[in-house]
Amino acid sequence: MKKEEKSVEKLKGISVKKSENFSQWYTEIIEKCELADIRYNVKGFLVFQPWSVLSMEKMYDYYEKALQRKGHKPYWYPTVIPEKNFKIEGEHVKGFTPEVFWVTEAGNDKFDEKLALRPTSETAFYQMWSLWIRSYKDLPFKTYQRANIFRYETKATRPFLRSREFYWLEAHDAHATKEDAMKQVNEDMQTTKEVLHDIFGLPFIFFERPAWDKFPGADRTFAADVLNPDGRVVQQPSTHLLSQEFAKGFNVKFKDKDEKEKYAWITCYGPAISRIFASVIIVHGDDKGLRFPWKIAPVQVMIVPIRNDDQITKKAEELKNIIQEFASVEIDNTEKSAGEKFNYWEMKGIPVRIDLGPRDIENKKLTIFRRDTNKKEIIDEKNILDYLKKTSIEIDKNLIKEADKLFDSKIKEAKNKDEIKKIIESGAIARVNFCSVDKSGEKCAGIIEKEIGAQVRGIKLEKEKATGKCAICGKPAKEVVYIARQY
Amino acid sequence: MKKEEKSVEKLKGISVKKSENFSQWYTEIIEKCELADIRYNVKGFLVFQPWSVLSMEKMYDYYEKALQRKGHKPYWYPTVIPEKNFKIEGEHVKGFTPEVFWVTEAGNDKFDEKLALRPTSETAFYQMWSLWIRSYKDLPFKTYQRANIFRYETKATRPFLRSREFYWLEAHDAHATKEDAMKQVNEDMQTTKEVLHDIFGLPFIFFERPAWDKFPGADRTFAADVLNPDGRVVQQPSTHLLSQEFAKGFNVKFKDKDEKEKYAWITCYGPAISRIFASVIIVHGDDKGLRFPWKIAPVQVMIVPIRNDDQITKKAEELKNIIQEFASVEIDNTEKSAGEKFNYWEMKGIPVRIDLGPRDIENKKLTIFRRDTNKKEIIDEKNILDYLKKTSIEIDKNLIKEADKLFDSKIKEAKNKDEIKKIIESGAIARVNFCSVDKSGEKCAGIIEKEIGAQVRGIKLEKEKATGKCAICGKPAKEVVYIARQY
Repeated sequence: MKKEEKSVEKLKGISVKKSENFSQWYTEIIEKCELADIRYNVKGFLVFQPWSVLSMEKMYDYYEKALQRKGHKPYWYPTVIPEKNFKIEGEHVKGFTPEVFWVTEAGNDKFDEKLALRPTSETAFYQMWSLWIRSYKDLPFKTYQRANIFRYETKATRPFLRSREFYWLEAHDAHATKEDAMKQVNEDMQTTKEVLHDIFGLPFIFFERPAWDKFPGADRTFAADVLNPDGRVVQQPSTHLLSQEFAKGFNVKFKDKDEKEKYAWITCYGPAISRIFASVIIVHGDDKGLRFPWKIAPVQVMIVPIRNDDQITKKAEELKNIIQEFASVEIDNTEKSAGEKFNYWEMKGIPVRIDLGPRDIENKKLTIFRRDTNKKEIIDEKNILDYLKKTSIEIDKNLIKEADKLFDSKIKEAKNKDEIKKIIESGAIARVNFCSVDKSGEKCAGIIEKEIGAQVRGIKLEKEKATGKCAICGKPAKEVVYIARQY
Repeated sequence: MKKEEKSVEKLKGISVKKSENFSQWYTEIIEKCELADIRYNVKGFLVFQPWSVLSMEKMYDYYEKALQRKGHKPYWYPTVIPEKNFKIEGEHVKGFTPEVFWVTEAGNDKFDEKLALRPTSETAFYQMWSLWIRSYKDLPFKTYQRANIFRYETKATRPFLRSREFYWLEAHDAHATKEDAMKQVNEDMQTTKEVLHDIFGLPFIFFERPAWDKFPGADRTFAADVLNPDGRVVQQPSTHLLSQEFAKGFNVKFKDKDEKEKYAWITCYGPAISRIFASVIIVHGDDKGLRFPWKIAPVQVMIVPIRNDDQITKKAEELKNIIQEFASVEIDNTEKSAGEKFNYWEMKGIPVRIDLGPRDIENKKLTIFRRDTNKKEIIDEKNILDYLKKTSIEIDKNLIKEADKLFDSKIKEAKNKDEIKKIIESGAIARVNFCSVDKSGEKCAGIIEKEIGAQVRGIKLEKEKATGKCAICGKPAKEVVYIARQY
């Protein structure tokens, strides 16, 4: 509490509107809500503070439970990967080499071979699989790990969205056939919906990326795009059907029912928790500050005694004891004024605040402030648990509905370049009939990139039927693509 | 399931007795129970497998909840620490330099300054504190992080006990006075008791280490020693009252009530989850394999259909649905024989196994195998939930009682060098009157080290009264110390 008290004296709330200056709004939220401190003395690395960590731990928990429910088993692989492992898959090494941090010495020893700080762990996982996978009976072999990841980003870093160390989950699965692998891609899309949308409240489109925008080493790449209010999309979990070069390079093979040795088909899926947290801030936040879905709020209920008084203190403790059966709850006992406390917890995004004063205590009532609606409600004190059980569900429904409505309104049909341009510049996503997402479409995509500064994000995994002509080249359209600017 | 099936065909159970060949027993447990694979291709690094990770995740959860309950807030600090930070505290840099892995380049850039992979995070945490701590009102400032840690060990590595990357929690706290800091040391001892002993079932003594055995940069060092069956002790969580050189070097100061600027007193506490897991294996395991306390078992209940049959399958699913309200539960549907399944799950340490056969189903009974007692019990099917609720508590009590009894029997009084030697060689801990644990006692400790190969572990934090003379030099004894061989 004490630290928060001090901080609020220094920081007066968010000074800009989200819709007017999104970039400044985001920067202020990170600092004033004490989500991360960028003043650590290694460039591109930051310190994640309790208000974000408490929420991200809950996000990890929901995500890991979903992966485990679908049969993924948890592992912890080493952070370091020998350079030779990277060289086994040619595209992979080419794609990642510019981004790798290298460990080259320890104590008084210089290493003969450099060790990479994992920028992703394909080349750590798969070398072990050749020791473990023998038979078709071992497949599907479904695994994941919770890990921190290192990338030597050369683009400007931004807390949570892009930093040189970040936090993710990576699921790696081996399958007997390409069809099974594609089933896994569909399962990953379903997992993304269950967690990202239904729990974190983030609307997205799950795309297959065009041929020219694949993960280094993938045959096919799929990814969920979430929308920022400035119209830019942020790539969230991606799934890759990897090239069999990985299975061949790491000797991941199995004896099939027909007694023949075959190489496995490998998929991987990587939700970056710290980056998804950025979308939680961005999608749900408003001009006052953060708003958290109930399930992933760092603290769910804050009791604010409106003045320092024994009777109120006693009642606050009594309420806390009742509420903590169902929710995480704290009492704000700082020396701030009631008004300052209200503003502070609204900025910090507490879903439910109880403002506790003598008159309410006398009348056995409670005054509740809900951050999803920004409205006050008065309830009977004795109903608090029932109220919270009901309201916690309502809050999440409201936030999801609001986010879905905005997202849906931002997808607009375009028939030609001018319309695409207008849509993109209005901060939306253009839905367009397009020649092709194989190599032959790259020229049209290049025109969009050059003239509009936007990217072809791909086609929906549940494929849509194209009609008429490509909005750029006029050839028959084979695909419906979505075009947006990328963060 | 399938993978486990394969493994059991290959591996036939533990081949040696724990009491006869502890080292081999431990090696076999790690491999046959699939806890970790040491075949990763970087020396000293290993892959932690699901059966250990599931348990260690639960251990993290209990530990983090205890730290949070006592007011510690979670952070995630960067894994890399600039070399200059290390140089600020002289003893610290001297102690850790031989053990540090260095990141020296990334992409195409060679760094001007090397970055350490954290071997511990004092020098990452405290530089930020000078930005955050201002006033006595900010104290105590209680923080922690869950993190992976890197040490370039030159001693032989051993899975979980000592590896070059391991998993821990580190709590770092700033206090206004030395007295407050010592209160924190006591709180840390209490936390160790609540978690390590009362949940994980590990008996320990919480020592203050002698002056010649302190953490590099600490004024005083405290640590919990757990006992292996071969008589060696393993250092588990340690707490340090740090030298104020850290606060001075990193400028961690605050304005006190008297308006004067003062340097903070800093304590840190580091439970290594992966190392504590080694003690869970060692303390609770028996000749058949692992035994898990209920609360931290990877899976708590295993249902074993004794043959493949529709009626049994249906009943197994039905039971699973009932049990999963209260416990983590799986069904072993592999093609192994019932006998193989029994042996396998006994080796893997499942606390409660349900052996499901047609006669029990007919009689509405369940045959239960309890791994804490290695005995079968028959209960009414309808009582399963009540049975599990009661038995889960009994299991943990039994395991703790058994461990405590053995531990207490291994502490023996010694009056002179010969008695110490005899006790140590019998695989026990010697309790001894001793001259002193300040610098003046180092000579006697050296004699014990040289002639017996054992170490003075320290004095109990709840101080005991010494009587008579030092068992080594014959001078008046100021302390009661405990002597043991260290893993």
